[in-house]
Amino acid sequence: MKSFLLIGQSNMAGRGFTNEVPPIYNERIMMLRNGRWQMMNEPIHFDRPVAGVGPAASFAEAWCEDNEGEKIGLIPGAEGGSSIDEWAIDGALFRHAINEAQFAMEDSKLGGVLWHQGENDSQDGKYKEYYQKIQRIFFQIRKELSAPDIPFIIGGLGDYLGKAAFGAGCVEYQLINEELQKYARDTENCYYVTAKGLTSNPDGIHINAISQRIFGIRYYEAYHKKEHVHEPLTNEKELVDKCHNRENTPAEKTYIALENFTRGKISYEELMKAFS
Amino acid sequence: MKSFLLIGQSNMAGRGFTNEVPPIYNERIMMLRNGRWQMMNEPIHFDRPVAGVGPAASFAEAWCEDNEGEKIGLIPGAEGGSSIDEWAIDGALFRHAINEAQFAMEDSKLGGVLWHQGENDSQDGKYKEYYQKIQRIFFQIRKELSAPDIPFIIGGLGDYLGKAAFGAGCVEYQLINEELQKYARDTENCYYVTAKGLTSNPDGIHINAISQRIFGIRYYEAYHKKEHVHEPLTNEKELVDKCHNRENTPAEKTYIALENFTRGKISYEELMKAFS
Repeated sequence: MKSFLLIGQSNMAGRGFTNEVPPIYNERIMMLRNGRWQMMNEPIHFDRPVAGVGPAASFAEAWCEDNEGEKIGLIPGAEGGSSIDEWAIDGALFRHAINEAQFAMEDSKLGGVLWHQGENDSQDGKYKEYYQKIQRIFFQIRKELSAPDIPFIIGGLGDYLGKAAFGAGCVEYQLINEELQKYARDTENCYYVTAKGLTSNPDGIHINAISQRIFGIRYYEAYHKKEHVHEPLTNEKELVDKCHNRENTPAEKTYIALENFTRGKISYEELMKAFS
Repeated sequence: MKSFLLIGQSNMAGRGFTNEVPPIYNERIMMLRNGRWQMMNEPIHFDRPVAGVGPAASFAEAWCEDNEGEKIGLIPGAEGGSSIDEWAIDGALFRHAINEAQFAMEDSKLGGVLWHQGENDSQDGKYKEYYQKIQRIFFQIRKELSAPDIPFIIGGLGDYLGKAAFGAGCVEYQLINEELQKYARDTENCYYVTAKGLTSNPDGIHINAISQRIFGIRYYEAYHKKEHVHEPLTNEKELVDKCHNRENTPAEKTYIALENFTRGKISYEELMKAFS
């Protein structure tokens, strides 16, 4: 199994409303819980009670399309509202994410790191030290996980920022994006992914569910092609539709029925019918 | 801050439906996420997408009543469906729970371990080795966390088991309860808590939300009085009501408003009004 470490702040953790997009169930996509794997079910993250749809599910679904019969594992480690300084290598977030990755790597091969962070650093000139800070963090991740060539896919900040509600204060997001792009250009196996054209929840800061699906497709494009994605993909909406329209396997249908039963949404009799 | 490690299987993780009981928000109750503390918001666990109300929230609320001005931290580590063998000391669940506790102990003092497990071992004579297995696990927890006298509060299995739906197979739950009681009698700082009279979800295996609130009160009684709780408490329903009826502080009200806004349930204008 190939595994991917998901780190950064809330838009990597995911705040898209789960009821705004069809769910993705795929028996070949796993997520890490208590140091073990289980089938993915969004939200993948649990950093906050409001965790929802992030980019990882459609990334993984696109990966599965290209890797027939193989499994992918997602390692949630992002933390809502975290600044780049909170990701310092001696801090709890960094050390905890490394720990989780190490559990994952007991029975998977780390395939890459998906990073999205920076809203919290989009003011007060913080962009000036951003390059240097991510450089130190990413270097140390590769070192501690003994994965010197591991690809980093790093997403840009949305151009809806700096305008409304909780996003209004992020006035320097373009300057952060420039630093991310510079870093990606300078660093081997590091690819930048644009957030151009993505839209937000009413809070003005969190990428909404359908845009997260698109973002995940762009992340996968960068990972797969090993190149930066500076413009929206012409076929990204069709690729999202493909994620949503795959017919579920019998194992996935059983999983869904069991979940509905455990939640009290269907009766035991209905569950038994689903099994027969 | 006093912290408590929560381990075992689904009824410690919690499967009570959150919409069946009033929520508990308390700025003095924290939960561990990504190696850091944040205000508790149920579900405390995230072992499964169906995680819900467990015993820990009312336990913590009762603790707060008796510890004016102090904070309590909850460390989720339980895993749905886990057998006692999956808790072996070289397994991922055990090692991961120890890791989480170590993060928690960076800025809290471990106050105890709440354990609930055994449904998975309530058949095929597995009770015969249960005592010996929990003995090894609990001994090792105390050792690895350098907490030789830490109290263990261990809950019994519900008497609704062995009858319906997914609980039907748990025919030897009384024999597991006998082993838990024996172990608690033999072991210093270990207290047994009865599940007598608790009721389940329609699945016949998971303690329902209101019963989990009661169970948490019993856990606290055992912890506080340092004695076994073999019978339901005469005033347990009133104590649960007290948990539900505490007036929220301004900080808690702000938290709730922010959560509603982030979920898209109230507008930015309504949020701003809540702040003014």
